[in-house]
Amino acid sequence: MPREITAFSNPLIKWARSLRDKRHRREEGRFLAEGLRILTEAREAGRVPEYLFFADDGHQLTQALIAATETAGGTAIATNADILSKLSGKDNPGAVIGVYREFATPLAALDRAAAPIWLVAERLRDPGNLGTILRTGDAVGAGGLILLDECVDPFSVEAVRASMGALFTVPVARASWEAFRDWLRAGPGQLVGLSLDTDQDYRAARYAAPTFLLTGNEAQGMPDHMAAECDLLVKIQMLGKADSLNAAVATAVMAYEVLGQQG
Amino acid sequence: MPREITAFSNPLIKWARSLRDKRHRREEGRFLAEGLRILTEAREAGRVPEYLFFADDGHQLTQALIAATETAGGTAIATNADILSKLSGKDNPGAVIGVYREFATPLAALDRAAAPIWLVAERLRDPGNLGTILRTGDAVGAGGLILLDECVDPFSVEAVRASMGALFTVPVARASWEAFRDWLRAGPGQLVGLSLDTDQDYRAARYAAPTFLLTGNEAQGMPDHMAAECDLLVKIQMLGKADSLNAAVATAVMAYEVLGQQG
Repeated sequence: MPREITAFSNPLIKWARSLRDKRHRREEGRFLAEGLRILTEAREAGRVPEYLFFADDGHQLTQALIAATETAGGTAIATNADILSKLSGKDNPGAVIGVYREFATPLAALDRAAAPIWLVAERLRDPGNLGTILRTGDAVGAGGLILLDECVDPFSVEAVRASMGALFTVPVARASWEAFRDWLRAGPGQLVGLSLDTDQDYRAARYAAPTFLLTGNEAQGMPDHMAAECDLLVKIQMLGKADSLNAAVATAVMAYEVLGQQG
Repeated sequence: MPREITAFSNPLIKWARSLRDKRHRREEGRFLAEGLRILTEAREAGRVPEYLFFADDGHQLTQALIAATETAGGTAIATNADILSKLSGKDNPGAVIGVYREFATPLAALDRAAAPIWLVAERLRDPGNLGTILRTGDAVGAGGLILLDECVDPFSVEAVRASMGALFTVPVARASWEAFRDWLRAGPGQLVGLSLDTDQDYRAARYAAPTFLLTGNEAQGMPDHMAAECDLLVKIQMLGKADSLNAAVATAVMAYEVLGQQG
């Protein structure tokens, strides 16, 4: 049976809300996800929350989440829309919010033969971009997303939201550039980097599975030593004044070209 | 000569800050843009601010902006980082913030022969998506972005920021669906909609210039009566669990396919 909590001063509510903060997430090893669609995606991927907050159990998907949470030994908590709103940080929170244990996939556990496309990002700064890249990764059937060096936290509220649940379906590994390079070169794999300093059009290039698409930092692109390590540098044609694309958009345009060629 | 303002209580600072709010923007017909790159993009597109706030005039681009603002009869204002931060809403504000007059392009003023690709969005809700679509529009050389029905405000701080200056280079028109449809059918133009209810792959389809790419609402996609009006419905292949892409990502993948075929 669900517990009931309706006071914002309740310690569990305060604790859950603190997970909006990166430092607390790291200390607790827990993060928040919100919304029926995302939590259902998680459930179908075998991830259930330790704590599930809901204001209304009328929806069939909410009931399924409550049952799954309790079956797995977690706690379902009936609360109200005000508290959901405070946990969510939005005026119109989703119908459910879950507290999940953080998870990570070690680089060594990735099976590069499992997928023809892999996404790699270095020093990604924007959580919305990270989540959007995960969502694209899900759509193109990417084997995983490898985050190099100091990327933004994939468990931030904004990243989880932008991923629309893909955080739970696409493996995420974190590694230093050196560790990634050593792992990559220990097996087959074409490292493809997006660059402004090449004449090779991305549509004219040929991609060999497994293809690892490397996306550089939003403002600076990738550093020279990473570009030098790439097996292939390609550019996306730009006709406008700004000569730039959003990092998540550029990743998706590339990934769909690779998928189109390989599919 | 620049004025100097260092008190947050100054009415001009309060007025400028109020433009972060949609209601005030509408009342005043003014909006904020931030950052050397975006304001320089604007200047090169012939748009200078009525008020230019800066904390440090050491950068050559800042000096060029001050000169352009004053030449055009605007006011350059020397201030400090705290006030820039309050205007910007960010801890690390850009070096400059400008107050601009809102502008709009009437549908009737668009020249469909001017570009092979046009972007159309209906009921777009996320300002980051709107800005990102504008940025993509700049990159693919789109003739403009046409916003149908109740879209989010393209002059919001988030949309301007995500556009990275493309708000100033890509014409934006706003229209009802009916007005757009009448305008579209008064001349040549292929209306292409993204849909989950078709077997037509977007890469196998053929696009005839001018192509109008219609992107539906983030959560619901486009309504049936718009899909029925499309000359072509296409789908983007999705291999994952979620069966969805971010709206700005889907627009970009489509736009680059059209550009690749037409270029």
